[in-house]
Amino acid sequence: MNLHAVYHRAKGNWSYAYDATTLHIRIRTERDDVDRVDLICGDKYDWVNTKLIVPMKRLLSDRLFDYWEAAVEPPHRRLVYYFGLHDKKGSAYLLEKGFMETEPENTYHGVFDFPYMNPIEIFTPPAWVKDAVFYQLFPERFANGDPSNDPEGVEPWGGAPTPKNFFGGDLQGVIDHLDHLTELGVNAIYFNPLFEATTNHKYDTADYMKVDPHFGTNETLKTLVEACHERGIRVMLDAVFNHCGKTFPPFVDVLEKGKDSKYADWFHVRDWPLRLEGYVPTYETFGFEPIMPKLNTENAEVKAYLLGVARYWIEEIGIDGWRLDVANEVDHHFWREFRQTVKAINPEAYILGEIMHDAMPWLQGDQFDAVMNYPFTNAVLEFFGQSKTDAFRFANSISAQLASYQRQVNEVSFNLLGSHDTARLLTVCQDSVERAKQATLFQLTFPGVPCIYYGDEVGLDGQNDPHCRKCMEWDRSNRNEELFAFFKQAIRLRKSHDALRTGEIRFLQALPGDDRLIYERWNNDERFLILMNTRSKPAELNAEVTPGRWTDAFSGQVLETSGSLLSLKLPAHGFAVLHQVAK
Amino acid sequence: MNLHAVYHRAKGNWSYAYDATTLHIRIRTERDDVDRVDLICGDKYDWVNTKLIVPMKRLLSDRLFDYWEAAVEPPHRRLVYYFGLHDKKGSAYLLEKGFMETEPENTYHGVFDFPYMNPIEIFTPPAWVKDAVFYQLFPERFANGDPSNDPEGVEPWGGAPTPKNFFGGDLQGVIDHLDHLTELGVNAIYFNPLFEATTNHKYDTADYMKVDPHFGTNETLKTLVEACHERGIRVMLDAVFNHCGKTFPPFVDVLEKGKDSKYADWFHVRDWPLRLEGYVPTYETFGFEPIMPKLNTENAEVKAYLLGVARYWIEEIGIDGWRLDVANEVDHHFWREFRQTVKAINPEAYILGEIMHDAMPWLQGDQFDAVMNYPFTNAVLEFFGQSKTDAFRFANSISAQLASYQRQVNEVSFNLLGSHDTARLLTVCQDSVERAKQATLFQLTFPGVPCIYYGDEVGLDGQNDPHCRKCMEWDRSNRNEELFAFFKQAIRLRKSHDALRTGEIRFLQALPGDDRLIYERWNNDERFLILMNTRSKPAELNAEVTPGRWTDAFSGQVLETSGSLLSLKLPAHGFAVLHQVAK
Repeated sequence: MNLHAVYHRAKGNWSYAYDATTLHIRIRTERDDVDRVDLICGDKYDWVNTKLIVPMKRLLSDRLFDYWEAAVEPPHRRLVYYFGLHDKKGSAYLLEKGFMETEPENTYHGVFDFPYMNPIEIFTPPAWVKDAVFYQLFPERFANGDPSNDPEGVEPWGGAPTPKNFFGGDLQGVIDHLDHLTELGVNAIYFNPLFEATTNHKYDTADYMKVDPHFGTNETLKTLVEACHERGIRVMLDAVFNHCGKTFPPFVDVLEKGKDSKYADWFHVRDWPLRLEGYVPTYETFGFEPIMPKLNTENAEVKAYLLGVARYWIEEIGIDGWRLDVANEVDHHFWREFRQTVKAINPEAYILGEIMHDAMPWLQGDQFDAVMNYPFTNAVLEFFGQSKTDAFRFANSISAQLASYQRQVNEVSFNLLGSHDTARLLTVCQDSVERAKQATLFQLTFPGVPCIYYGDEVGLDGQNDPHCRKCMEWDRSNRNEELFAFFKQAIRLRKSHDALRTGEIRFLQALPGDDRLIYERWNNDERFLILMNTRSKPAELNAEVTPGRWTDAFSGQVLETSGSLLSLKLPAHGFAVLHQVAK
Repeated sequence: MNLHAVYHRAKGNWSYAYDATTLHIRIRTERDDVDRVDLICGDKYDWVNTKLIVPMKRLLSDRLFDYWEAAVEPPHRRLVYYFGLHDKKGSAYLLEKGFMETEPENTYHGVFDFPYMNPIEIFTPPAWVKDAVFYQLFPERFANGDPSNDPEGVEPWGGAPTPKNFFGGDLQGVIDHLDHLTELGVNAIYFNPLFEATTNHKYDTADYMKVDPHFGTNETLKTLVEACHERGIRVMLDAVFNHCGKTFPPFVDVLEKGKDSKYADWFHVRDWPLRLEGYVPTYETFGFEPIMPKLNTENAEVKAYLLGVARYWIEEIGIDGWRLDVANEVDHHFWREFRQTVKAINPEAYILGEIMHDAMPWLQGDQFDAVMNYPFTNAVLEFFGQSKTDAFRFANSISAQLASYQRQVNEVSFNLLGSHDTARLLTVCQDSVERAKQATLFQLTFPGVPCIYYGDEVGLDGQNDPHCRKCMEWDRSNRNEELFAFFKQAIRLRKSHDALRTGEIRFLQALPGDDRLIYERWNNDERFLILMNTRSKPAELNAEVTPGRWTDAFSGQVLETSGSLLSLKLPAHGFAVLHQVAK
């Protein structure tokens, strides 16, 4: 047994309350090294009467490791535990204080401890998010519904985007095209920033309390939110709280008055006066961008101001969530107060952080509900879009990601395939509509919340910013209607089946050097078998199944398997989604 | 290279700000498996100009693993990084997304990220704690200075303690004997509970705002605190916030009025009326103890009340810290507010949690400064006190403990060898004064804050509660004066040498099956070589050293080594502490 590979550390993704009564406990072992793992657990004040031996299930595997999990309902809201690991050669017992060759005589010292399931610490993200399909809208480029508020020098709709040009997109344009969202089937919008700012992307906020006049008014947004809610569409805004823009009045004041400004402590100034030394500002900024000064969220006035902003748009305008820009550079204390403020007004508000790396420190129930899942993006695009990895590496990467978070985090993880910050899905997929479909199908049959970047559904393309911020295509003859039909069908499929949203997931086939992938999603009521051929030529896929009747979820065709082998020939970059209802 | 053994996950003890400008980054590899580890790091927005390759130092080793560390000062308060691991056969690179065989081409995705060193998140425990030697006082048993406040039925001083009897110890008794503490050399007191309660241990609080009348008054405590401060002694009280006692008025009200009590939500009631079902109360308690109902610290009134208590004793009485009873069963939200409340009044107050297991979730700078280090207690007593482990297992256990926390946590960790909850040091040491001395010497030459349980210094003995709560011995003819002299000398030694408090530590010899231990402590100015023979017969100890002059810190004898081998013969359970000043 490779004891060096075994890992467990209490809390985080390794032991957590999934709900008010259930603990999930996980452990890691070397892949295919251990035959059986038991969780030996009980109440620390009543071990003799409560001791249980719970066989753990192999949950997921990646290249190096197996991850095992057990769900336990402690009789008195607390649990002490250790692990029994067994292979053909023998057993080892893992306690907090280390390995033992035999079971411990007592559990007073050195065992793992989940001391108490305090209700306030049960991490419960908003329930609606599990059922959401998001649509990301870059407001300057979606639709121009009110030419009267166009910025000066606006260019004709559909021109080439540059870092600084404007096309006149606005909120009225969104209101006018809500039918498109309904037709597509999405039920939540993520808006890039809407507040007054100088740029076309509005990440340099001038006034956090005001919709940019080129987009409309606060009243227009309220109308839009109400119209969305009538259609069952929720609305999330972008909170750019890490930094403001150079025209934000407190920063203007500091620029003018230097350290005598009453806002001097609103920013992190290393040296006065504010200036550039080489390319490095003498005050903290986003990156080295002098027009985006970092806000001092430790300052009580700044905190009160930003929390007031967070409150206003929920209370007065009725939005359903906040996406937090550059969330990882703002202090945890601020985010904890942010969560308390937001959830006190609307416990069902979704709090989504922009964090591109491991986000465990923000996902413990006290800060965010979820983060933008860029590791997912990268893995999916490398496999389906670019064939840079094989099925084995892809499944390993996805499994490692799932294993690294609690189940409730995975259930509301924000799974995107592209955004205003990346090249477009179709472009990353080398302009292959079939590859884009496979990537999207994986996204829509995976746990978490899919988000579709506006226009991907009709075949918009474009390299990195500014090219990924093209104007939305409203002329049906210029749209890929077949792709659009696929998106609609795949979204409808997800929305009609719980198993695709919150069911279990398992990779059935994902071999080294191979580009065929088979995985399943299931719950107590139904089961999906999803087969993908990422080759550029036809391929045969074989899955071991229990004999039965399967329905192709896209074609409606029925497959009857009598033996335990299901064999399907798929075209180049083809897929099949087979569905079975539990008996 | 055993890739399965390699572990790093950003934050916690693996990457943290040690101070405002320095990050510590650690990684784990299999013991003796890897020859060299490099930290490859830089600024994410300016990788090309800031990339650094920092060789990592092997910090500690335990049975299975080596722990490596590097200290880095990021140029712009943020750092992305990955690791280069090298052995004779080749290299591997560990990124957040997994292992690579070659260095990554870019650092945009999948590297480890320490996104920003926000000042508010720099974990800085109070500086005085690093220099403290604590003395734990069980107030009912230290000294009776005011017989007029004795409880009814008080028994003569020095009788056999039972779970329920009283001997009349009080605060005036402590005031009267401060000279003893000064003579011993301690400079901080940890008081077991002082607030009004029915038991002799006072863990069943009746009134959190009032010193127990049998101990004195709030005014007596204030006098005591002032007298201590004049002598440079700090005072820490016990906060029993997990649960109250059965005579706490809100609980009395709930007992009387049931769910109509206005305090009904102050507790966690599962079923009305409050009762026992078998041995299990229908309301949450400490353990299954019906007289200790768990407080609902999620309730705003309870929170306000307890935070008011925390504030009062610091503001009005001037105490220097709080020890938090059963801290692991109270919710993290409460402790975060507790820290903010306490530190707002006195940023130098010490917040110490009673947690007997891995306490990482409470030690991230937002809750406690330290926890009571029971894993240390157990390891030290098993090795020095009972010879249950060998030097190898002992050093491995201690090293694993050090590796599992940040350096600033280790520097203020509360290292005890016994308390009111455990058998007495001398008793655990099988009544061997020499074993007790070795254990104490290790405690006093180890990083962290030593705490001496009252009476251990004069040879009090006793099995578990109630026997470990004997009356303090004030008759010098009944005290072990030689042991007392040893304690005084060892404490003086620690207090006179920074290296023993905050220096580095390294085990030089700790072999399997062996009971000889050699370790060193050092800083830039001085070095200690500490040798221990835990055999019950004499033994020769040999240490490899750079030639030079050493002074025996206890005897004052000078040793001159010319070769690189220092050889010492130590008696049964003997020790030597050799000191060298840096040239």
